[in-house]
Amino acid sequence: MTFNFDSVYIDECSTVCGPYEKKGPLRRYFDKTYNDLDMGEDSWELAEIKLVKDALSMILKKSGYKKEDIDLVIGGDLLNQITASTYGTCGVGNGFIGIYGACSTSTLGLLVGASLINSSYINNVICVTSSHNLSSEKQFRYPTEYGALRPISATFTSTGAGACLLSRDVSDVKIESATIGKIVDYGQDDPNDMGRVMAPSIIDTLTKHLEDTGRDVNYYDLIVTGDLGKYGMEIVKDYFLTEKGIVLSNYKDCGVMLYDLDKQKDVKAGASGPACSALVTYSYIYSMLKEKKLNRVLVLATGALFSPTMVFQKQSIPSICHAISLEAV
Amino acid sequence: MTFNFDSVYIDECSTVCGPYEKKGPLRRYFDKTYNDLDMGEDSWELAEIKLVKDALSMILKKSGYKKEDIDLVIGGDLLNQITASTYGTCGVGNGFIGIYGACSTSTLGLLVGASLINSSYINNVICVTSSHNLSSEKQFRYPTEYGALRPISATFTSTGAGACLLSRDVSDVKIESATIGKIVDYGQDDPNDMGRVMAPSIIDTLTKHLEDTGRDVNYYDLIVTGDLGKYGMEIVKDYFLTEKGIVLSNYKDCGVMLYDLDKQKDVKAGASGPACSALVTYSYIYSMLKEKKLNRVLVLATGALFSPTMVFQKQSIPSICHAISLEAV
Repeated sequence: MTFNFDSVYIDECSTVCGPYEKKGPLRRYFDKTYNDLDMGEDSWELAEIKLVKDALSMILKKSGYKKEDIDLVIGGDLLNQITASTYGTCGVGNGFIGIYGACSTSTLGLLVGASLINSSYINNVICVTSSHNLSSEKQFRYPTEYGALRPISATFTSTGAGACLLSRDVSDVKIESATIGKIVDYGQDDPNDMGRVMAPSIIDTLTKHLEDTGRDVNYYDLIVTGDLGKYGMEIVKDYFLTEKGIVLSNYKDCGVMLYDLDKQKDVKAGASGPACSALVTYSYIYSMLKEKKLNRVLVLATGALFSPTMVFQKQSIPSICHAISLEAV
Repeated sequence: MTFNFDSVYIDECSTVCGPYEKKGPLRRYFDKTYNDLDMGEDSWELAEIKLVKDALSMILKKSGYKKEDIDLVIGGDLLNQITASTYGTCGVGNGFIGIYGACSTSTLGLLVGASLINSSYINNVICVTSSHNLSSEKQFRYPTEYGALRPISATFTSTGAGACLLSRDVSDVKIESATIGKIVDYGQDDPNDMGRVMAPSIIDTLTKHLEDTGRDVNYYDLIVTGDLGKYGMEIVKDYFLTEKGIVLSNYKDCGVMLYDLDKQKDVKAGASGPACSALVTYSYIYSMLKEKKLNRVLVLATGALFSPTMVFQKQSIPSICHAISLEAV
């Protein structure tokens, strides 16, 4: 299903990131960067909460809105019970919707927020998401002290938070439409190969978006996926080429854009985590749209909807992808 | 903020529960009950997923819709990364929105779903939520084998799932409006006294709902809170009486309604978990509205937005409450 919006604009964006992202090629687009992963806090969870608070305080400052002027905050993250979002956003806005879409959180939040603005239920909304490499490693993988080796297909959870303020006030960048994804499960079960897990959901949502809108892939100056990493990207490209005869020449992946994969070898196949697509979309892509260097961008953020418990129980990993069409005004 | 709906109806509801709920006073209103907590599955998580699948298959059967006729599924639960909802709903509907609102999930889902229907983005939506006593105990509390004693203020996570199908087709029960809550944190930090943690968010959202709609509490035949339990209820009643001079005579709590607190001593202060308000609302309350024994009901489901990790780190527990106004047509 594709929802069309006629009066939803991006008022402002804010981004904050950690040391790995700061060393990546998009460093100059971020509003704030940290040199250390602890952000001056006593735990990785509190560090991630700090990132959310940073993103919110910056977007309020940049936009001129006060905390109490914000109708709604929509937030979600990877931490159990989305505590980065709930603890980080407490005190901002007159309502809160908690969402869970793993690494698809950025576009899921924009989709829900834009729908509520376009139908005049609210005047403005801040959509925020975050991830932290070490709060995620602690929760989803091995204690880092074990020194477990990661295969080349593994992605590296990005550290950062991104916020996006939507309203009906005409600005330079519009949210034109959104395609909501469904849960896709192709029986993949390797948590160290998320690109392979999530590629089918991108194919599903991108195909649906093109069908619903009657567009072809060249309608967009850029089609960008959430965080497939370099191997997952190849699956999507191969599928469209071999199954549909479509060359995805205008296609990039936020997970590949966020780091310099040749120099930052630790990150293996690329970035992941809800912050990944938020950091790239709300900094670089938003700038390019504002400057009209890009005019039409389709962002397809993707989430792997698993938990360590389900992986331990030998269950496959479902995934989902939600798409947002952004246009320069 | 209160959203008004002019054309959102409850098409059908379904409920399934475990052995404790089956022994409670609402037993005859549930569609399906289990005598054991394992639901024939190999893990508590798979048992909870089974409950979600049961609720969905029953609501599809009762309504006559096919899986592919459903525009959207909105789901959320307490399991880390809401896996009961993602694994349980996979294959149903053309889109999925994952939400997290802890025990406020039922009304949060209805609020988002009703907004999307009322603004004609979708034609129908199934909102589903679940909880399971032992998947929750395992994740949030002690291994049950430790035999840790629970204080009288503790609530008992309910086992069950409830689904609600909304559409624009006129039926016997209408969703009239919804008030979205904000995150409230009064510095409470006892996970064994959730009633005290969540009472302030009920007070906040109920006050806002009455202000926004210009109604007084007697407008409703019944005001029902999510799962405060018997002590949390007293806090809400005391507050309205002493601070506002309002007697809440038409007030009940789903956590107190689901069990027979005098006989089922194990449950201590009452039921909790996202299934609690869903089981009571989608069975007993829905029936009373259909039969016009109740005409106007305000459901205020409440969630404690914490994780064990944040409690171990000595953080306070924020909470949230979303309200849904139901009317007999």
